[in-house]
Amino acid sequence: MRRGVHAEAAALTLLGVAPRLAVVVATADEGAGWYVRSLSGAARRVGVECEVVDLGPDAAPELIGATLARLSSDDTVHGIILQTPLPDGARVEELAASIVPEKDVDGANPLSAGRLAAGLAAYPPATAAAVLELLDHHGVELAGRSAVVVGRSLVVGKPTAQLLLQRDATVGICHRHTKDLAEHTRTADVLVVAVGRIGLIRAEHVADGAVVVDVGTNTAPDGSLVGDVDAVDVARRPGALTPVPGGVGPVTTALLLAHTVRSARAHV
Amino acid sequence: MRRGVHAEAAALTLLGVAPRLAVVVATADEGAGWYVRSLSGAARRVGVECEVVDLGPDAAPELIGATLARLSSDDTVHGIILQTPLPDGARVEELAASIVPEKDVDGANPLSAGRLAAGLAAYPPATAAAVLELLDHHGVELAGRSAVVVGRSLVVGKPTAQLLLQRDATVGICHRHTKDLAEHTRTADVLVVAVGRIGLIRAEHVADGAVVVDVGTNTAPDGSLVGDVDAVDVARRPGALTPVPGGVGPVTTALLLAHTVRSARAHV
Repeated sequence: MRRGVHAEAAALTLLGVAPRLAVVVATADEGAGWYVRSLSGAARRVGVECEVVDLGPDAAPELIGATLARLSSDDTVHGIILQTPLPDGARVEELAASIVPEKDVDGANPLSAGRLAAGLAAYPPATAAAVLELLDHHGVELAGRSAVVVGRSLVVGKPTAQLLLQRDATVGICHRHTKDLAEHTRTADVLVVAVGRIGLIRAEHVADGAVVVDVGTNTAPDGSLVGDVDAVDVARRPGALTPVPGGVGPVTTALLLAHTVRSARAHV
Repeated sequence: MRRGVHAEAAALTLLGVAPRLAVVVATADEGAGWYVRSLSGAARRVGVECEVVDLGPDAAPELIGATLARLSSDDTVHGIILQTPLPDGARVEELAASIVPEKDVDGANPLSAGRLAAGLAAYPPATAAAVLELLDHHGVELAGRSAVVVGRSLVVGKPTAQLLLQRDATVGICHRHTKDLAEHTRTADVLVVAVGRIGLIRAEHVADGAVVVDVGTNTAPDGSLVGDVDAVDVARRPGALTPVPGGVGPVTTALLLAHTVRSARAHV
């Protein structure tokens, strides 16, 4: 996919519409900083301009909203991301309403979520889209199969469930209140885990032959990046598991850039 | 609930803000006609004015959208419903975007759905809200329990799943592509059925002690109104089943009126 995005970005640039992504940051969080640098690097490599608008960790919600509104009406910007975490008192789901849906490449505006549920054109959150992209890439059939999503966050769990439902899977959604998690997850042909807890999913949670997509990104005590799935334990089961790091993360980045380029096409 | 709405509507009327619901109709469908008359009657009984704006079965989508926009900016209107079915070429999820969220008492605007998913203030579709109202009225516990919704429509299945998830139920969503429906539905402590198929759910689909909410409204060969659940067969199981007619239908109507009155309060 990335090669296609690179070629398309180059062609658009030749036509005078250089694809441009704006990332609004209002945090000193280290993980967020690492992620934004990684995204900027990936953007540069495929020929997408990436503008980081750093408002500082004490930015008022009003300033963040006004910045998103300004970027929304800036014709040279084609994609807008509001990086989390945000300062106290700022809520991403409220502020993201200031991102026009055409530039909402990470599907953060509630209107994008609603349009997605209604089957209308909208960008889904890139992480959720990445889960589907991975499943499609590996030819995993979804229609009529049982898919279970563990986690119900606005950015991953809920939209992933929505996308799986659109693809005719029978969908279950589990979370911290679920009693006997393993009983539910063991019914899954496709298991998507997006909670943020190391070792949450072990062999006993997984059916033989199930495909497991690990969306978790946790920092292990030794500083390494690990998912929610105990990969060593789950490897005892015949089936497939996406790795962390790798897996969903890089595909998410690629999709954010692909969405930005798609949005830029509308300006040719 | 209805008595409270009646008293509140009377008080608002005394204050010069007579609660008013506008129903936009563009169909000659008999069922729709029956429903709108029933809604008008219920509105009159609780002191809510109900204005039916009949655009005729050949109304152009542009006219429907313009009418919704006009009613949205009319200060004397507090609730707006777009009745289905619509003429060919008109899509409710596109047109409903012209209903401002504050008056979107049946949660038809995709923005309302997105705000609901994001946990922001919004009216859910009244039928979905009615399912929860019924469960609450009967003291059915939801947190940590297994709830299965059969049907994934935009007006009932999807928003009901959303509301059950908000209430910390573990939620499953089944539909026509689900293989072995009974295997899924038998895991449910709470089973909500909203498909529109007579006799879809029988005793074999229901666990002992499960609560079954039947949202189906079908016309039987003898002309009577029946749900999706074979009530006689399911009665062999110990548990509870909401009746059709009765059950969800009247509660839905009551909630539409309650939403309209709540919206009118903002104008005092």
